[in-house]
Amino acid sequence: MINVGVLGATGAVGQRFVQLLADHPWFNLTTLTASERSAGKPYGSVVNWRLDSPFPDSSAELIVAPTTVDAVKDCDVVFSALPADIAAKLETDIADAGVGVCSNASSHRMEADVPLMIAEVNPEHAALIDVQRKKGRDGFIVTNPNCSTIMLATALAPLRKFSFTNINVATMQAISGAGFEGVPAFSIYDNVIPYIGSEEEKMSREANKILGTLDGGKITGAPFSVSASCNRVPVIDGHTLNVWIDIKATPAEVIEAFKTWQPPFSGLPTQPDHTVLYLDQENRPQPRLDRNRGNAMTVSVGRVREGIRFVAMGHNTIRGAAGASVLNAELLHTMKYI
Amino acid sequence: MINVGVLGATGAVGQRFVQLLADHPWFNLTTLTASERSAGKPYGSVVNWRLDSPFPDSSAELIVAPTTVDAVKDCDVVFSALPADIAAKLETDIADAGVGVCSNASSHRMEADVPLMIAEVNPEHAALIDVQRKKGRDGFIVTNPNCSTIMLATALAPLRKFSFTNINVATMQAISGAGFEGVPAFSIYDNVIPYIGSEEEKMSREANKILGTLDGGKITGAPFSVSASCNRVPVIDGHTLNVWIDIKATPAEVIEAFKTWQPPFSGLPTQPDHTVLYLDQENRPQPRLDRNRGNAMTVSVGRVREGIRFVAMGHNTIRGAAGASVLNAELLHTMKYI
Amino acid sequence: MINVGVLGATGAVGQRFVQLLADHPWFNLTTLTASERSAGKPYGSVVNWRLDSPFPDSSAELIVAPTTVDAVKDCDVVFSALPADIAAKLETDIADAGVGVCSNASSHRMEADVPLMIAEVNPEHAALIDVQRKKGRDGFIVTNPNCSTIMLATALAPLRKFSFTNINVATMQAISGAGFEGVPAFSIYDNVIPYIGSEEEKMSREANKILGTLDGGKITGAPFSVSASCNRVPVIDGHTLNVWIDIKATPAEVIEAFKTWQPPFSGLPTQPDHTVLYLDQENRPQPRLDRNRGNAMTVSVGRVREGIRFVAMGHNTIRGAAGASVLNAELLHTMKYI
Amino acid sequence: MINVGVLGATGAVGQRFVQLLADHPWFNLTTLTASERSAGKPYGSVVNWRLDSPFPDSSAELIVAPTTVDAVKDCDVVFSALPADIAAKLETDIADAGVGVCSNASSHRMEADVPLMIAEVNPEHAALIDVQRKKGRDGFIVTNPNCSTIMLATALAPLRKFSFTNINVATMQAISGAGFEGVPAFSIYDNVIPYIGSEEEKMSREANKILGTLDGGKITGAPFSVSASCNRVPVIDGHTLNVWIDIKATPAEVIEAFKTWQPPFSGLPTQPDHTVLYLDQENRPQPRLDRNRGNAMTVSVGRVREGIRFVAMGHNTIRGAAGASVLNAELLHTMKYI
Repeated sequence: MINVGVLGATGAVGQRFVQLLADHPWFNLTTLTASERSAGKPYGSVVNWRLDSPFPDSSAELIVAPTTVDAVKDCDVVFSALPADIAAKLETDIADAGVGVCSNASSHRMEADVPLMIAEVNPEHAALIDVQRKKGRDGFIVTNPNCSTIMLATALAPLRKFSFTNINVATMQAISGAGFEGVPAFSIYDNVIPYIGSEEEKMSREANKILGTLDGGKITGAPFSVSASCNRVPVIDGHTLNVWIDIKATPAEVIEAFKTWQPPFSGLPTQPDHTVLYLDQENRPQPRLDRNRGNAMTVSVGRVREGIRFVAMGHNTIRGAAGASVLNAELLHTMKYI
Repeated sequence: MINVGVLGATGAVGQRFVQLLADHPWFNLTTLTASERSAGKPYGSVVNWRLDSPFPDSSAELIVAPTTVDAVKDCDVVFSALPADIAAKLETDIADAGVGVCSNASSHRMEADVPLMIAEVNPEHAALIDVQRKKGRDGFIVTNPNCSTIMLATALAPLRKFSFTNINVATMQAISGAGFEGVPAFSIYDNVIPYIGSEEEKMSREANKILGTLDGGKITGAPFSVSASCNRVPVIDGHTLNVWIDIKATPAEVIEAFKTWQPPFSGLPTQPDHTVLYLDQENRPQPRLDRNRGNAMTVSVGRVREGIRFVAMGHNTIRGAAGASVLNAELLHTMKYI
Repeated sequence: MINVGVLGATGAVGQRFVQLLADHPWFNLTTLTASERSAGKPYGSVVNWRLDSPFPDSSAELIVAPTTVDAVKDCDVVFSALPADIAAKLETDIADAGVGVCSNASSHRMEADVPLMIAEVNPEHAALIDVQRKKGRDGFIVTNPNCSTIMLATALAPLRKFSFTNINVATMQAISGAGFEGVPAFSIYDNVIPYIGSEEEKMSREANKILGTLDGGKITGAPFSVSASCNRVPVIDGHTLNVWIDIKATPAEVIEAFKTWQPPFSGLPTQPDHTVLYLDQENRPQPRLDRNRGNAMTVSVGRVREGIRFVAMGHNTIRGAAGASVLNAELLHTMKYI
Repeated sequence: MINVGVLGATGAVGQRFVQLLADHPWFNLTTLTASERSAGKPYGSVVNWRLDSPFPDSSAELIVAPTTVDAVKDCDVVFSALPADIAAKLETDIADAGVGVCSNASSHRMEADVPLMIAEVNPEHAALIDVQRKKGRDGFIVTNPNCSTIMLATALAPLRKFSFTNINVATMQAISGAGFEGVPAFSIYDNVIPYIGSEEEKMSREANKILGTLDGGKITGAPFSVSASCNRVPVIDGHTLNVWIDIKATPAEVIEAFKTWQPPFSGLPTQPDHTVLYLDQENRPQPRLDRNRGNAMTVSVGRVREGIRFVAMGHNTIRGAAGASVLNAELLHTMKYI
């Protein structure tokens, strides 16, 4: 059994990690960390469980540890839901101490020797771990991308066989993406906020790296540009994207690619039957109706039409965060990095 | 005094017309039409007043007329909130009977001799009325565009001095745009519906006509293309647009254009101080905060950045429907068509 | 295997019935009825599946039947999601034709020989079927109560051992209770509607019947009064009740009753582990967090305090409608009425 | 001119105070206080104006002062939007320094010599200021009640001519009542929170004091009891109350009282034409439709029926907070306390 931990187990993404790991067939959840205030107490007594899925009883008695290198040094891999400022140094220290870090934080995503990975999309980038190892690190850091970027890059994976350049994308992002307390009701109810700090820049640079080419231990970013316009809308979970892509393909060819594309592997515990699922109804995908497909790991696409325009949608805290990270770890296990 | 009427006075747009006309300085609201079921009764007793502005007492005792040519033949101009299928023939008959029709309906918008007008943007297109007159019509039909198109075309007006081609636009449209009963709560609450029937096509063809050139009694559509992706979001009033425009201008030049552009006239009763208002905060415009600017007639713009990308937002049933139509009538009065 | 059908299979409650019956361990779903327009076509092709649970593939190929006696005469029991006006005569005819009718409609609830049943609360009322049989009916009609009444009466079941008189109850009812199209977004968004037609009267008379005593083939209503104030609120699923009850018990005794009460049977397929579940956190129950407990069949209670006041909440279309009806049928099967 | 200030001018209630005072016919807004971080800068540059009414330009250049006694000593009266913990000592010190304090905070409401006032309901309680003066205070503290209590007590004012005892009340309170940041969207969207800390206790004791009798410098609380159940619902502004009142009157008599009751004075600048307005439609009052009546100072009532039950609703940050306080000050000015 592989012993795993969650760094920052009480927040929105942390609770999703616990939900996904509590009864995982491969991973044994041994360690949960949170703030000093919660340390030393049973997780069940300190967490304010905010998800609509039931609280996993198997984690209730785990004693919360402080968020330190020492607390997790006996884990084989930890999943990080830490805020970026804390993640920066701590994840480095944990990786250097020999523990694998699968991180949802943004801090290390763009570093040259850190894979920025969506398991089904760019699994080959895992080899960057070897570069970290060569530099003397016993553990590793692997990151998953920003939630909106995951939806975009996953939807683009089937289209890589075509040639494409410019992408314009408008996002309509769910409330949960900002954490449980992140968006006040007074701000977003009956409203659209047409700005999410750093989101547009992240989508651009992260997409280029994810779909870039690994050669000689370095990634050359993909040559397309992403021009994003990111909005917060009154939706609880599920990010919706309107995409324009300058692509040498007809709508019918794009639909066919969406319908037939297969990831290079299958059957991992958190992997959905359909990583990308094409919906043919004219008013789909919709977040409330489609966000839970594939145990909330499927990216649904639809409305493919000349432009080329299409719509993509996925669950932002599962496919877009914790689920992406857990699936990465499952892949790394099959690759023997874990 | 100019006697006016409202066709279809009990629905969402109809009530907005009544709100704007009930105590108008130039127009005397004499006639309200609705269904046969309501005809013959006082408006105050049949209307289910759904707006959050107070019911205008001056209209309470007007006896509702049936929606027929005869009922409105003594009006100088009527404002039509009719559904497209009814508007098609009835507006033609009313115009032929000598009454001016300022219509919010889509039925006649693309006809060659019918102005598709945003008063401050293409007032010169009013001259198409002369073409209708030459064909023997005593009245006229003038239309205002679809709500989303109004926001887009109004925001583009200050940019016409630059050269631009492709436009991609994602809309996030408010519930009220579909009428009081148009969107079930179960459909839209905690959701995004990434499809609004015919909306994308309307935005495209209407924008080209509005910003097109009138010459020799014919309009040549503007040479830019509009590729739209229209969504319904959980907002009560106010349509938000994310725009990408292929334009030969820098962000600073675009901002300057937004700040300095003036319509070719001012001071009409329904005209706002700012037809286009540039907001410099990074997270504006937002519908709930900005939709009422200029008595809900201002189109707010912001987030101008390289791309060129910007955000535009306006009140969809006032600037985007009834207010646009009333302002058109005010303009036509100054032009002596009314 | 018991052959069952659903009358009115395409609406909000109808879809819940299909969701619950499609793969039921005891019931074989053979027949789905809908309007004439849908009749003759596969269910999967005519239904606009609006639930966030996946469409049950096993029902996709069932050919929709028209809503007639003839269409269901080979069923052992049918579940009715019909509107009250249609249910009135049709359910009578179907029951007379020898089919058992478990109905969610209000039409027959208050009839003297029709059980108004919440399976765990007043199972003994099923004996009224014998009265129907004596009158020559081969089938039967059994009804479940109105959604809000179900939450109230279920929460009162553990308290029957105490003596109580007056009840005041304020309800905050979810949108889905009015059907998919029942509440326009424009009406309820950022709003409370402090009126639901007939709801307050139903709560009052139905609660008295459910908790009444069956003796000699007649039910004597329970001697407490219910004074209700019913409101619609912007919640998708889940009705929340604030209850004041004039009861001879302390808060501690009421809590103990909630925690210890057991229904007179257990283990039916749709029966939850906890029919009534006491939550001790100070801000619970909440609909979004608690409505899915017990597969959405649990009524959660909390905030018990002097007054006596408490809060109850349950899923309105499962516990409050389709689930209640299916559980009734399961009970009737154990009692050999089916 | 009377010089006034606002303590805590940047939060939800503070901004309402500024909105109401910026261009007040009697009061000259000279001083705005906020945190140390904002002190010394123009109000327009530090406030994040969150109201949908336009920012009052006349206040933009006021230099924000720190929240100290010294900052406001030259004001005749200050309006306090301070949180309770800060208000406790600071308001005392400011009043002792000779400034009148009209406070929205809860800190001093239940003190024996502090009026807890709704201007139209218990104006005679202002005489408690004389008790403060006798104790050597040069200024005064006058408080307005909690928002829900204001709606309840105002609705009860017309009913004082009848005899009444028990009141049960369920509240459905708006988001803005908790401040701009007080309720996370993730907590309240598609949800009801059946608990608001201390609210039920406040409603009970405050209502008794407001409707109590002042005699010999002491208030004897009114002899009715209030048993409340307070909920937060997804509404932006406007608290809705379902009331049960044990009263010796028929529904018709209660309606007549609501329709005919007049406050003991009229014509104050912030006073609405109708302090209490009876609406006879069966589904009113509703917050989104009725909260702005009387410039958001009217408490609307309706649905009066046997029980006696009725519904009341008012704007929680204007009638329920800042507007109540400003109206109190206007009254105190006519009474020469200011």
